[in-house]
Amino acid sequence: MKAVVVNPPNAGVEVRDVPSEPPSQGKVLIRTRLNGLCGTDRGIVSGKLTFSRPPLGYNYLILGHETLGEVVEGNGRLRKGDLVVPVVRRGCGSCLNCNLGRQDFCETGNFTEIGIRGAHGTMREEFLDEERYLVKVPNSLGELGVLLEPLSNVVKALNEVEYVQRRMWWRCGDSTYSCMTAAVLGSGPIGLLFSLALKTMGFNVIVANRRPPSEVESEIVEGIDAKFVNTSEKVDIRPDLLVDTSGHPSAFIPVLPKMKKNGALILFGTTGNESYGMTAEDVTTLVENNILIVGSVNASKSDFEAGVNFLLNWKAKYSNLLEKLITKRVKVEEAPDVLTRKLPGEIKTVIEWK
Amino acid sequence: MKAVVVNPPNAGVEVRDVPSEPPSQGKVLIRTRLNGLCGTDRGIVSGKLTFSRPPLGYNYLILGHETLGEVVEGNGRLRKGDLVVPVVRRGCGSCLNCNLGRQDFCETGNFTEIGIRGAHGTMREEFLDEERYLVKVPNSLGELGVLLEPLSNVVKALNEVEYVQRRMWWRCGDSTYSCMTAAVLGSGPIGLLFSLALKTMGFNVIVANRRPPSEVESEIVEGIDAKFVNTSEKVDIRPDLLVDTSGHPSAFIPVLPKMKKNGALILFGTTGNESYGMTAEDVTTLVENNILIVGSVNASKSDFEAGVNFLLNWKAKYSNLLEKLITKRVKVEEAPDVLTRKLPGEIKTVIEWK
Amino acid sequence: MKAVVVNPPNAGVEVRDVPSEPPSQGKVLIRTRLNGLCGTDRGIVSGKLTFSRPPLGYNYLILGHETLGEVVEGNGRLRKGDLVVPVVRRGCGSCLNCNLGRQDFCETGNFTEIGIRGAHGTMREEFLDEERYLVKVPNSLGELGVLLEPLSNVVKALNEVEYVQRRMWWRCGDSTYSCMTAAVLGSGPIGLLFSLALKTMGFNVIVANRRPPSEVESEIVEGIDAKFVNTSEKVDIRPDLLVDTSGHPSAFIPVLPKMKKNGALILFGTTGNESYGMTAEDVTTLVENNILIVGSVNASKSDFEAGVNFLLNWKAKYSNLLEKLITKRVKVEEAPDVLTRKLPGEIKTVIEWK
Amino acid sequence: MKAVVVNPPNAGVEVRDVPSEPPSQGKVLIRTRLNGLCGTDRGIVSGKLTFSRPPLGYNYLILGHETLGEVVEGNGRLRKGDLVVPVVRRGCGSCLNCNLGRQDFCETGNFTEIGIRGAHGTMREEFLDEERYLVKVPNSLGELGVLLEPLSNVVKALNEVEYVQRRMWWRCGDSTYSCMTAAVLGSGPIGLLFSLALKTMGFNVIVANRRPPSEVESEIVEGIDAKFVNTSEKVDIRPDLLVDTSGHPSAFIPVLPKMKKNGALILFGTTGNESYGMTAEDVTTLVENNILIVGSVNASKSDFEAGVNFLLNWKAKYSNLLEKLITKRVKVEEAPDVLTRKLPGEIKTVIEWK
Repeated sequence: MKAVVVNPPNAGVEVRDVPSEPPSQGKVLIRTRLNGLCGTDRGIVSGKLTFSRPPLGYNYLILGHETLGEVVEGNGRLRKGDLVVPVVRRGCGSCLNCNLGRQDFCETGNFTEIGIRGAHGTMREEFLDEERYLVKVPNSLGELGVLLEPLSNVVKALNEVEYVQRRMWWRCGDSTYSCMTAAVLGSGPIGLLFSLALKTMGFNVIVANRRPPSEVESEIVEGIDAKFVNTSEKVDIRPDLLVDTSGHPSAFIPVLPKMKKNGALILFGTTGNESYGMTAEDVTTLVENNILIVGSVNASKSDFEAGVNFLLNWKAKYSNLLEKLITKRVKVEEAPDVLTRKLPGEIKTVIEWK
Repeated sequence: MKAVVVNPPNAGVEVRDVPSEPPSQGKVLIRTRLNGLCGTDRGIVSGKLTFSRPPLGYNYLILGHETLGEVVEGNGRLRKGDLVVPVVRRGCGSCLNCNLGRQDFCETGNFTEIGIRGAHGTMREEFLDEERYLVKVPNSLGELGVLLEPLSNVVKALNEVEYVQRRMWWRCGDSTYSCMTAAVLGSGPIGLLFSLALKTMGFNVIVANRRPPSEVESEIVEGIDAKFVNTSEKVDIRPDLLVDTSGHPSAFIPVLPKMKKNGALILFGTTGNESYGMTAEDVTTLVENNILIVGSVNASKSDFEAGVNFLLNWKAKYSNLLEKLITKRVKVEEAPDVLTRKLPGEIKTVIEWK
Repeated sequence: MKAVVVNPPNAGVEVRDVPSEPPSQGKVLIRTRLNGLCGTDRGIVSGKLTFSRPPLGYNYLILGHETLGEVVEGNGRLRKGDLVVPVVRRGCGSCLNCNLGRQDFCETGNFTEIGIRGAHGTMREEFLDEERYLVKVPNSLGELGVLLEPLSNVVKALNEVEYVQRRMWWRCGDSTYSCMTAAVLGSGPIGLLFSLALKTMGFNVIVANRRPPSEVESEIVEGIDAKFVNTSEKVDIRPDLLVDTSGHPSAFIPVLPKMKKNGALILFGTTGNESYGMTAEDVTTLVENNILIVGSVNASKSDFEAGVNFLLNWKAKYSNLLEKLITKRVKVEEAPDVLTRKLPGEIKTVIEWK
Repeated sequence: MKAVVVNPPNAGVEVRDVPSEPPSQGKVLIRTRLNGLCGTDRGIVSGKLTFSRPPLGYNYLILGHETLGEVVEGNGRLRKGDLVVPVVRRGCGSCLNCNLGRQDFCETGNFTEIGIRGAHGTMREEFLDEERYLVKVPNSLGELGVLLEPLSNVVKALNEVEYVQRRMWWRCGDSTYSCMTAAVLGSGPIGLLFSLALKTMGFNVIVANRRPPSEVESEIVEGIDAKFVNTSEKVDIRPDLLVDTSGHPSAFIPVLPKMKKNGALILFGTTGNESYGMTAEDVTTLVENNILIVGSVNASKSDFEAGVNFLLNWKAKYSNLLEKLITKRVKVEEAPDVLTRKLPGEIKTVIEWK
């Protein structure tokens, strides 16, 4: 069958035929409907993500970790036609957190990630997977399900913040977040999903980038009653919660002195490539104001499930707004092209399988 | 204007004219669209709920605490035409929890509750309220917003359980609740809202009553992929989470020995009228199995907001199923009739204001 | 060597010779210094604790789970002469909580407990144990270490309460417990250890029993600035936290209506033998006041470690008061006698090994 | 009476006579026994701590926030002769956290701090204070009570970490911290108090400085079974928990890549004066490993109470070791001298009042 194939750590990508997996007792056969593309995919294709590697015994890796699939042959819980999304990371099998289904907190680093490291991904016509790694998506969500994987990581990060911020009273006097501001640095798909989720939690939301918004960004940010700010102009952001999706220390370190007391900073982005000075005054700011910073990666299956609920919610509340996050649909033959360059005005590009 | 008026602690109810409130700086004028009826309303009408009382300076009480209203004149955040639901309890103004907006945990008991104790309710053509007590409901939810108030109490109880059960690992090995069973005792509106919410959280859900399900109950329970059991027949329920909405010790005490280890019991119902023996063996069960019981009442504004998200979710996922919870719509003139008897097959009866 | 031997589920106890265990790689050899006696031991001896059983392959059980031992031959962390206390419960090896070292929350019930079910206890001259089951006790604590095992269970229960009560603000306006009252039902060793720990946490403490205090009880209760109340007389207890160490529903159910709002009840005792009516009004009390009840059993190794800190603390603060908890020391030959009757004025009876 | 007086924001310090406060209803009169000196005091004296200011209506500030006092005239709870320590920060009176007694999380910044900003300190013969700000210290602790104020801040920081790290499983497989390493950067009084507390919690503890240990540091670090490392030599620290007491980004940023997954970094120090580059790789480390950083300042009254328990514990466990933290005792006349220079080999210098 056709698949999008890479050779990490070498650069390059091609669409070519790969052998089908032999049927396996207890595994579910899934036909791929959509794959989302993200920075990690492009990082692998460019040869820059040095941790990427083929599965044991293979000299190639099938790409793809953002997936919407359809069950071809059902088993116990899953029935033919059900929409499913596979979780990306699979636990190391030995550490305490992996044994709890919290492989996103794997202590050993010996996990695999489909389409990324040590396990084939889903940019292929069909694939087999164990039921325990498959998250069911209601049919009413339809193709929006392809957003679930990136969203799951957002959900995990926000769950982290909600839990840790109970270290003190971090709500308004009416118990909500209505008096609080969350600022999201970056307006890519992850930035916009954070914005949607934070709005749903009740925050006032600011989306920040170093440029004016694109048309689609404007539409989405206004549609959810958030605010876009161009940080290349003089702006005054004073957030209670800061989310960095950029990976640039130069983006978030200058905001630290403006954060509200007891605030939190989520570090999510990793693709920056720079160094930026942290001063003793910055440290004093963090200390004197009890500010918390939490790095967050990956997601548990429960975060995927919570992500389904967010998507249903947004579909009901914002009608067609969510579809606008998918700015381009391509055929698999076009994958090598869209995997080697960022498209103009792109939020999420997806590969459609017929 | 017309209002549904009671004279607690005396029995009785009538629809009659009451004076309009004078406009008040900073208050929002709201036209009532729907009122839900619940056991508390009927308890007040029957004269049995002895804590019910008129506002200071009044010799009558306007009934009504389940509300969907529409803003007549907007102010800052709220605009004409916005749908809103007022929170029921208003804090004592002095205790620590009330000052945090957690009047549901009021320490003094000196709170008021609209339509119940010390404050007029919303069974009237229109009412004034402070913005801070009003929860905005997306227009896409429409009349389902009338379910928000009862749902908010369910949300609060489930938040309690999710937080306290982090005392140990209380999830499946994949981090979800997919291997766990929640049993809900009672299939009234509260029981069904619990079932919907628990299903959304990922539990296997059993709805239990001492009789077979009504047609609507069957439809809803099956529609959400839960299971109805008739406990007047021999059944074997072994829940991880037990929710009592009946208020009958005879309903939940016999289930204690069957609960899974580390399980939790939510006590929500209060309308039972009986005594049931708790044995030393029951106590041993609770101790040896680390079982937790939590009584839960009322809700914070943040629980109302989370309730909005549940409703949007269910609307998207279950389409028209939710509307079936509203089994009867009556005019205000019929209010005294439906407030003095439980209707056959009733889940939620609502008063429609034109 | 000499050991105290029982034949559960049959009644009876004898001191007799048992074979020594063969040395085992990686196990630590420990000489027993003291054994504490508790209700569980007497329950096994009386034949009433039907869950007690010998280890696989044995037709007898060596009694003893409250221990102070001394290392005979050291290994890595433990050195000759170190004082140690073995944890009682050993995990099932399969459930999630046991794998986390939280065998006190074992989900399967397939654990063993030394001296109680399925594993030999420590009422013998010496025993072998794995280092991971041994808690080191500072030499400065000396014989007080024999109190560690019962104390560990108290610590676990209080940790449970501290965690779960963060569901809302459950502290005074100065962030302490200084305005709050804890009432402990029962003045046996467990009741007194709870009282000491609660006092250390900052609560006002009431120790309640159905009789006047013994002389030693008075001395200890006064020495820690707590208050003893005789509940056979008319008393008015209004606790924020209630701890039942009696196992009698008739002891704690009547106190429920007097509990402060948002309060908590710890169920710890299991030895009652009765039934007591819980009324719908009791249920309403629990619901309307957000009261939480938590059954608590056993302890993790971390609770033993926290227990060491409590003991050190009390030794420094209360000087010789703690020694008074040990009301009698007997030789092993007297064990059958003191295991078959409760001694007058007894708090903790211990067996001294020479 | 005699007092140590400063004129912030101007540099300088003198011992001079100040008027006594008039007796005030409900206030407790306390005779000062000991004052501890810390970097904040010296920062004020040097004129570098620009936030320091006299009380309203005064043109001078009495220094002193580390105190051990003795009650001269008792009231309700406090009796003549009781040892007390006043809390330093007094809430703003308006924000939610201050109203909870968590002025360490003040949201407005409008708090005062005795001896630091807006309120007179305790470097004077006697002072009046409200009982609610006074923490009672057991007489058995004696002069060690002067360590309570610095310790309270350590306790608060560790409480923060213990709470937030429950976001995942962050313990060893036996539920303790015995397999985990905490590294403390800095070996001043705060660094050593952190080390003592972390050891008590069960961590393996490394104390790090950029130089070899002094004799007293060696004695204490070895006495508590911790390890001192000189980071000016090549060392390999791989901590689960990192505590920075130095305030130097150049101290902790280079350790980030060596931290264990899911680890935490406490920022406590503020006195560094430099800038150090944080690279995108550092950010990636934080993200990919779920690392959490928390700034922590000040303490609540409950942290002072927990600090008392630590001190009692250490007194019982380590005998005279704790006294060694007090490396010098001076008369008040010598205060200006010791406030203007760091003494060689100093850990804690105290002023003794007769």
